[in-house]
This record gives sequence, C-alpha cells and structure tokens, in this order.
Amino acid sequence: MTDAPAKPHRVVIVGAGFGGLETVFGLKGAPVEITLIDRRNHHLFQPLLYQVATASLATSEIAWPIRHVLSDRKDVTTLFANVNGVDAKEKRVRLEDGETIPYDTLVLATGARHAYFGHDEWEPFAPGLKTLEDATTLRRRILVAFERAERETDPQRRAALLTFVIIGAGPTGVELAGTIAELAKHTLPPDFRRIDTQKARVVLIEAGPRVLAGFDENLSAYAQRALEDSGVEVVLGQPVTECTADGVTYGGQQLNARTIIWAAGVRASRAAEWLGAPADRAHRLKVNPDLTVPGHPDVFAVGDTVTIAGPDGNPVPGIAPAAKQEGRYVSKVIKARLNGTTVGPFRYNHSGSLAQIGKRKAIIDFGRIKLRGTIAWWIWGIAHIYFLIGLRHRLSVALSWLWVYARDQRAARLITQGSSKVTG
Amino acid sequence: MTDAPAKPHRVVIVGAGFGGLETVFGLKGAPVEITLIDRRNHHLFQPLLYQVATASLATSEIAWPIRHVLSDRKDVTTLFANVNGVDAKEKRVRLEDGETIPYDTLVLATGARHAYFGHDEWEPFAPGLKTLEDATTLRRRILVAFERAERETDPQRRAALLTFVIIGAGPTGVELAGTIAELAKHTLPPDFRRIDTQKARVVLIEAGPRVLAGFDENLSAYAQRALEDSGVEVVLGQPVTECTADGVTYGGQQLNARTIIWAAGVRASRAAEWLGAPADRAHRLKVNPDLTVPGHPDVFAVGDTVTIAGPDGNPVPGIAPAAKQEGRYVSKVIKARLNGTTVGPFRYNHSGSLAQIGKRKAIIDFGRIKLRGTIAWWIWGIAHIYFLIGLRHRLSVALSWLWVYARDQRAARLITQGSSKVTG
Repeated sequence: MTDAPAKPHRVVIVGAGFGGLETVFGLKGAPVEITLIDRRNHHLFQPLLYQVATASLATSEIAWPIRHVLSDRKDVTTLFANVNGVDAKEKRVRLEDGETIPYDTLVLATGARHAYFGHDEWEPFAPGLKTLEDATTLRRRILVAFERAERETDPQRRAALLTFVIIGAGPTGVELAGTIAELAKHTLPPDFRRIDTQKARVVLIEAGPRVLAGFDENLSAYAQRALEDSGVEVVLGQPVTECTADGVTYGGQQLNARTIIWAAGVRASRAAEWLGAPADRAHRLKVNPDLTVPGHPDVFAVGDTVTIAGPDGNPVPGIAPAAKQEGRYVSKVIKARLNGTTVGPFRYNHSGSLAQIGKRKAIIDFGRIKLRGTIAWWIWGIAHIYFLIGLRHRLSVALSWLWVYARDQRAARLITQGSSKVTG
Repeated sequence: MTDAPAKPHRVVIVGAGFGGLETVFGLKGAPVEITLIDRRNHHLFQPLLYQVATASLATSEIAWPIRHVLSDRKDVTTLFANVNGVDAKEKRVRLEDGETIPYDTLVLATGARHAYFGHDEWEPFAPGLKTLEDATTLRRRILVAFERAERETDPQRRAALLTFVIIGAGPTGVELAGTIAELAKHTLPPDFRRIDTQKARVVLIEAGPRVLAGFDENLSAYAQRALEDSGVEVVLGQPVTECTADGVTYGGQQLNARTIIWAAGVRASRAAEWLGAPADRAHRLKVNPDLTVPGHPDVFAVGDTVTIAGPDGNPVPGIAPAAKQEGRYVSKVIKARLNGTTVGPFRYNHSGSLAQIGKRKAIIDFGRIKLRGTIAWWIWGIAHIYFLIGLRHRLSVALSWLWVYARDQRAARLITQGSSKVTG
C-alpha cells in the first residue's frame, strides 16, 4: 500500500465457498485490495461431504485452509470472522465482534443451510449435511446406531437402531442412502457379533414422484433400480409429516428409526435480510442479470444465496459449477468497471449433472449424452478427483477410494466428539 | 458356543489401548471367549497424537475402529461402553448403563489421563493430550490463536495470542514445542498478512533440571540445543505455580499467553478404586510380579494403569512397548493356567527410547547405542511407520510426512468443532 500512488479499490468478499473463492481467483492481477471473510478457516468441497458422513473420507481430504489456498496472493487478506450485517449506506460489512470492514465493491457468497420448511423443531432428530461438523456428527450417529444395536437385547429397539431414514432424494439424499446401504451390507458385517448389519433398513423418502428429479426420467428410473438393488427402500410421493426421536411419520404411518437424515431442502443465508433486498421463498436474493443486488450497484451476490434464471428459463441450479461461473463472471464485471468497459449479462452454461448411487453405479447427464452404470461411475470419480484443489488431496482421495473399492473398508470410521458420553 | 462341549473360559478385557489389544492378540487360538470393552470405538496410536494436535496428521491416520482391527477374530466380542466398576466377589464388570458382564479372568488395561497434581482448576486453561478429542481441541486452540492474532490490533493482546506455553518437557512436551515452533516459523508465515508468525514465542517450562529426563544426559543436552535452534525458549527448574486464562506464573513472574498446553503428568484410571487395591500416588495399581492385582488372582492389570519395577529396579516406563509386553505376558499366563502350567514373573525388556524434536532432529537411546540428529530422525520415522497397524495407514502417514517434509505444509490445518462460534 505504501508504494501505491492511488488508493486501491477495496473488494470485500464474504464466504470462501466455490463462488467466493472463484471471484478471488478471477481478480488475480487486478488493481484491487481484497478482503475475504469466512466464519470457517477452510474451504470445503461440499459435493463429497456425504463421503465424510459415511466414513469413506477423512475431513482433511475435502477441506483446505483458506489462507493456504491463497498464500501466494499477497493482495488478499483473509479474516476468520462471522459477518452479521451490511451497512450499505456507509459501505461497510459488520462483524459479530463489532469491527466493520469498509468496501468499494462487496461480493456476497454466503451460501445456504438446510431448511425444515417451518419445522425447525425437527432439526435435532433429523440433522442435515452442510458443514464438516454436520458430517462428523452424522458419522457419529450412524456408527453409534450400529454400536447400540449390538448391545440392545429388545428386538423392537434393535430394529429401530438398525433403521436409517433419509428424507429427500436429491443428489445428497441418494448418495447418502446408497453409501449407508453399502456400509451396512458390505463393510460392517464381519465386525459385529450379535447383530447382522445386512438386516439394517435404509429407507429413502421423497415427497416428489421420482428420485433425482433434476435428471432425465430414464436416468431417474435407473437410479431408483440401482438403489433398490443395493438394498435401499425407496418411498416416493410421500411428504414426511413428523420427525421425532422415535422415527418419522409419512402417509399416516409411523416408521421407527433412530437415525434420520435431512436432505430435503435448503434455505439461503441472511444476505437478503442484511440488505433488505427482494428474495424468494428460500430466502435467495433475486439478483440483476449482472448479479448485482437490485438497488445496490456495488453489491454482487453469487452461488447458493441467489436465484437467477438460466438460458432455458429454469433457475440456475445450486451446484458448484454454477457458483464458480458466477464468481468468475463477477470478477470480470469488477475488472471491466475499473477499466471503464462493460460486459454482457451473466449466462449460465450447464456442462452436465453427475450423481453417484453406489459402488460402480452412477448417472451422468451431459444433455445429449446420458450415461449410467460402471462407465458413469468411473467418469464421476475421475471428474471429482480432477476438481479437488491440490495434488496431494487428489492422490489421497484416490487412494482412499481405491481402498474402499478394493477392500470394502472405510478408514475414517471414527466416532469422535462426545463419544465418551455414549454408552449402550 | 453351540458346538463347544464345555463352557469356555470367559476373559473380559477393559481398554483397547496397546496393552489390552496385545492381550487379545496373544490369546489367539486359546480356548477362551473374549469380551473387549472400550468407551471409544477406536484404538489410538498415542505416540503420534501430538502430530494431530499440530496439524501434521489427520485423526484417521492414527486411529482404527477396534471392531475392524479384530474383525477376523470371531472369538472376540467388542463392546462400546463405559465401565464404572468391578464386582470382584461376583466376578462381574459393571457398565455405566447398568449391564454387568461376567468374567472368569479380568484384564484391566484402562490407561491414564493427564493430571494436574491437585490443581484440576487449571484444566480449562491448560488442556492435556490423551484422546483424539484432546488433539482436535488443541489443534483448534493453536490455529485459532493465530487467527485471532491476525485480527488483534492491541500489541499486548496480540503478543499474548502469539505466545504458546508447554508445561512439562517429557517426550510429549518436547515434541509439541518443536512442532509448534516449526508451524510458526516455517509453515504459517506465507499465509498471514498482518502478523509475522515467526515472531511467535514457544516457551517450554519444566520443573526438573533438564528436558527428556528419561534419556541420557548428553542426549538431553542435544535435545535442548536443538529445541533452542528451532526457536523454542526452554525454561528449566521452574515449577508452574498458576495457570489462568491470561497465562502462567513461574518463579514469581507472570507470562502472558493465550495458549497453554499441559504435558506435565498423568494419573492412572480408576481401576485401583474399583478393586480397593493398593496404588501409588498417581493411582497406579501396585501389581504382583505376574501382573495380577494383590488379593485378586483372577484380575490382571497392564499398561499405564499399573506400576511395577523393571529389571534395573526403576519403574517400567509408561510407554507403548512396555504396555504391549505386559499384555503379551498376561496372555501367556492365562494360557498357561488353562493348560495347568506356569510361567515365570514378568520381565520388562527395554528396547530403547526415541523422541522427535523437529525436522531432521531426533534422539534415540538404545542403551549402548545413542543416536541424534538426522539419522536418528529417519530411524524414528521408519520405526513409527513400521509400528502403525495396517498397510494403508503406513502409506498414508508416510505420504503426509513426506509432504510436510518437502513442502513445509500441513494438510490437516482444519478448525472444527465449535469453529462457527469463534470470532475475533
């Protein structure tokens, strides 16, 4: 700063997920001073979070310290802090501890959390999966359920402990159901003496008419068959009407289950509230075609916290590639403005959808090309390893997967946090 | 059980650390029915726990699900439960949830926790390192201290955040001090913008006259020089008289430090209380020469929860090889009793002591052969990789270490558990 003749343009980016980080990458070399704020110290590769929850990967294999990812970017200051408001008039971001950070341009990339559609009281019984802590909590619940079943003598209680309900059959729900079924049917059987883990029930409940509704109907049908082949019970067209410590209710019937996982919906961050800006029912900011927030030309928003129509008229999906494209686009707009030029409106380019269903089972929808089965599974694996940042993690994840693949074993089957309090 | 003509001899082992697990291994093929009880679901390779605390290794690299380690041992039933007593008259182990487990022979391998010598009120300010949770807690504290320092503008508070005190210069204390110094001096500098992490102070305080008192004096002196070369301040002959949220007091002076780590002493489990048996000041059971508990010929105790004299008259040290030898010995006594034969008293065989001080710095004391420096460091690394159970973990740990070695980077620098609550 001391040798800069003019005061550089200050860009503040809130959130170091796919959208926020891509904005930072896109601004490399631009005459700006960047402050990146996140309440976590790590960037998380969310698409593989379910593999931490199901003990296939370790937390450090899908998360990287943000500072380290950006260690060679001397133009970026990373703050580990909780944002709780924006003062748009003064152009300052408010942190929870009272500090305020001034900006010339603000980028909100604050993501989403799971949402219970007015039933927040279900959260303790049906936790969702968005953070590393969520993943280790779910892993503990799943593994402890088997441990308790091993020590339970009452057949009904034992059956409830061995029943796993996943609510919502989007990619996360499908991937969780498929992996828990594998865990129960293939990984765990030799380790237990009193219970037969193969008898565990994995029930996937979906309110809509099919699984993976974002995919082509034929691929959905294949995914359902593949799940059923793996031992997952698929229940369609049934909204869950109650979640308690004992289980779930749907279609008027009660299913006793001690482990329930919520994968049915998300709600955007509070970014819309901070700005008093228009949002949809899921709290997503309705942004302008250049991804600025209406009424706030210096505030951009990207990723899961916004809603915008794609070229086909449908909303741009809440997936990593979309957030990255938005972040990259915003970096171009910021650079163009500094150069006194303009760029056209954001245009989402959908490159394809992938979902893993189980071992050697995946589906891929590239538009014209649709794949399923073993070849789709290999492409899914290679694509994900390719997207992981940093050589070491790619290698480590590849080794972990080869291990799971070859031996049906999962290295990360650790019950941590509060485990000592858990007995029988 | 159904095809066994006579009721098999029931061996109950409490604790799946080095001693307990080695007892199980030694009983392979014996005509016994084994129940292994642990309040954790994993066996922990404690000698490398400090590397999890200092972000070099992931939790899953030094811990294995007990069930999985023993999945091919159909004679072993593993229970994930908390033991809270022994009814020696009825020959039953009491679990916290009320269940009791009958035994013919009982092996107590319940280990030790850190101890504050009558100052339990220090624990919140100076946590110790015995479990995976302890390690992730310490990792969080260390990493958060740097994060807070980056956001602190007051020079005194910033200095306190960048001061790390380790109390106790045994192997754990020395290894922690050396690794934190490396983290501050080599790994973190490029990642921070406002603070110079190289200015962090790492202070190792020891009440006794030298570091690593269990080693030869020359090796101790070398270790001290190596620590000081790495930037660790070594304070000897100074018992700590106070620990608070602000720092420590020793020799009448106050040192402001926001991170304090306790590595000064351990206390055995409650096994002696359960039996009302004689114990030393650190609650260690005083066992007979055949490792039975006095007055309880059917109860053995091994590992950190016992004290027994070695062949040189000194107590057998509380290290993994000693616990393993004791566990192996007990399995032999049990088998001999079942065969109607006897074995001589336990005789500890000390094969050597190893400690890592920093990158390319270690000391090894094999009795006649004493090594230090780079060659000792390589032997230390190879020995530890050799001792890790299971090929995959060896490979994974080796890769992690090579990465740290070649790049000065640490993959596991994740702040988890409660991180979202931490601001500024």
